[in-house]
Amino acid sequence: MPPPPASVSGQVLSFAVDATDGAARAGVVTTARGTFRTPVFMPVGTRAAVRTLTSADLEQLGAEVILANTYHLMLRPGAELIAELGGLHGFADWDGHVLTDSGGYQVFSLEPKVTDDGATFRSTYDGSTHHLTPEGAVAIQQALGSDITMVLDVCPPHPSPPAVVRSAVDRSALWARRAKAANGPARAEGSTQAQFGIVQGGVDLALRTESAERTVALDFDGYGIGGLSVGETRAEMLPALAATTAVLPADRPRYLMGVGDPVSMVEAVALGVDMFDCVLPTRLARHGTILTSEGRLNIRNARFARDPEPLEPGCSCPTCQRWSRAYLRHLLAVSEPSAARLTTLHNVHWLLGLIDAARDAIAAGTYDAFRRSVAAVWDQPPGGHGP
Amino acid sequence: MPPPPASVSGQVLSFAVDATDGAARAGVVTTARGTFRTPVFMPVGTRAAVRTLTSADLEQLGAEVILANTYHLMLRPGAELIAELGGLHGFADWDGHVLTDSGGYQVFSLEPKVTDDGATFRSTYDGSTHHLTPEGAVAIQQALGSDITMVLDVCPPHPSPPAVVRSAVDRSALWARRAKAANGPARAEGSTQAQFGIVQGGVDLALRTESAERTVALDFDGYGIGGLSVGETRAEMLPALAATTAVLPADRPRYLMGVGDPVSMVEAVALGVDMFDCVLPTRLARHGTILTSEGRLNIRNARFARDPEPLEPGCSCPTCQRWSRAYLRHLLAVSEPSAARLTTLHNVHWLLGLIDAARDAIAAGTYDAFRRSVAAVWDQPPGGHGP
Repeated sequence: MPPPPASVSGQVLSFAVDATDGAARAGVVTTARGTFRTPVFMPVGTRAAVRTLTSADLEQLGAEVILANTYHLMLRPGAELIAELGGLHGFADWDGHVLTDSGGYQVFSLEPKVTDDGATFRSTYDGSTHHLTPEGAVAIQQALGSDITMVLDVCPPHPSPPAVVRSAVDRSALWARRAKAANGPARAEGSTQAQFGIVQGGVDLALRTESAERTVALDFDGYGIGGLSVGETRAEMLPALAATTAVLPADRPRYLMGVGDPVSMVEAVALGVDMFDCVLPTRLARHGTILTSEGRLNIRNARFARDPEPLEPGCSCPTCQRWSRAYLRHLLAVSEPSAARLTTLHNVHWLLGLIDAARDAIAAGTYDAFRRSVAAVWDQPPGGHGP
Repeated sequence: MPPPPASVSGQVLSFAVDATDGAARAGVVTTARGTFRTPVFMPVGTRAAVRTLTSADLEQLGAEVILANTYHLMLRPGAELIAELGGLHGFADWDGHVLTDSGGYQVFSLEPKVTDDGATFRSTYDGSTHHLTPEGAVAIQQALGSDITMVLDVCPPHPSPPAVVRSAVDRSALWARRAKAANGPARAEGSTQAQFGIVQGGVDLALRTESAERTVALDFDGYGIGGLSVGETRAEMLPALAATTAVLPADRPRYLMGVGDPVSMVEAVALGVDMFDCVLPTRLARHGTILTSEGRLNIRNARFARDPEPLEPGCSCPTCQRWSRAYLRHLLAVSEPSAARLTTLHNVHWLLGLIDAARDAIAAGTYDAFRRSVAAVWDQPPGGHGP
């Protein structure tokens, strides 16, 4: 008899840890599409494009995974249209990995009407009414054709009353079970899309532990850690994160959703997190705030008007190879659209470089010194979620 | 005795005609920077950047000459700052040719107070008052470090009373003489900046002839043809253009300022014009209007929502190599900034390709058939000047 097809084994994603340093780990994720290294930072391509960049730019930067937002894409241009054009990879001509969120984060920011069945919300585009269920979120992400999908979860803001956080944990667990079941037929038919569960629980350590245990019991390909970077301080976030990673299995990737500020990233890696996404580098870039090894730099400042240096001396990004702070400040000052692209190229390059350095430090067994060196430069609250 | 330096000979720009077909000519302009082929289309980089593009993009597109606007740059960031950063070439890291206008066109659109001495106008940026003279325009362009500079002229709108057009011709001739004199010391000291005079005269054929003769008498490195594409019809423009080119010397390049719509370009080439600039391809692109061999195409149209074809099938531009009409329409519909860059790349590539085809047709002796084939597709009024 022939061996069973890979799909029946349920193994569509594997995760090999190459090195550890304390709880931090460096590894490789393998999917049907190929591999990507972890820890990984995933630039956010909300509407099937990272703002100001093309897939050619992202290839040049060496990005390995892009995040796309289900909420935005289901409304504009619609999941079926994207499916018809070859899924997100065909639509944007992007051969790297794509991870799609479930739409839950944006929907909950709209204060939807929520029942056990799902969430009813109004489109921010045209006010039309939509109903998103765990099964619907699975179907939409199947149409989008992403490599990694996320289950629909309930993400309360911070602070929320204990009963709200408890309810979010219970409903997220219920919905995770339904999302897993909804994805079963496709998986049985050979789908190679991975599916990640999501842990909730706010900053309540007991609820974090419980939510992690209930999610892990469903056996997902990887685990998202949601409900953080939603208004709490970093001092509140890190213990909740630690309580979560303590429960998550070592052989599956862990994805801290919506976090991308340098200090939170390196602290989270120290707690065993493997994957990150955040609009921070791209949003900051559009406002002229530049990420450098010495901290933030506001290129709009008058002191850069005649500065012939690149954004960061020694940087190998496409922008720093050619253009000066003076030129970029001028382009921003006169609202030339190329400015935002050039600063975005630098910031994404810089954050990808930071995560590269984290990987190297783990492999070298010097992660703690690396973590402290980043924390010494960067002292800021966690970055924001969302587009 | 050593030979005199090249500057003393007055020859900082040479023009070799390689082929003619009727009055149309294909040639090569040589300056201290290098060479460029004519007929040439010069993308407009108003503020030291072609909107949405970088100098790397322009290199990829094969652009040979970029136009920069003296008016905008003298106000933001200022000519002295650009001089300090290495002139326009250093500032924008652009090794191709740069032609700067004199600022006259924009200043006159502000309805300045004009005397024989110069024009006093208010900045559109902050309302501050500035006085631009023929000598000042020379000095600013010297600081900008362009390869080809233009004299300050008086450009009346169309229609204007005969006395206004007459006065513009007289004052332009007076100012051209002063601009030439003002550039003399730099030229004697070895400056390799070329200086073009500008012919005015509206659509009055006798005034065109007179203005051309008076400008040619001053012996410039090349000749701009101004005061056209300012509101007149193409049927009014072409005879005025013919009256001008009839007087201009065959051994100097002729530059029709602010014209870039396909029909006017190919008609002007047929009358012996060598150089063009226009914001048309870049401005249209930002609004989703695509230049193709079959005419304009509005990519925002709903019929392109699911169209997997590139903007123009068979096109070799970076955009058409990778992305579909459906993807570009989506990016425009959701206001992704990358959309404007991708459509601009196509339109500039397309117009550069049109002028390449014109050169080839002149060399092949088939220019008249080429001109008629372009006119058969494109039927629109002349494109606009300015940023």
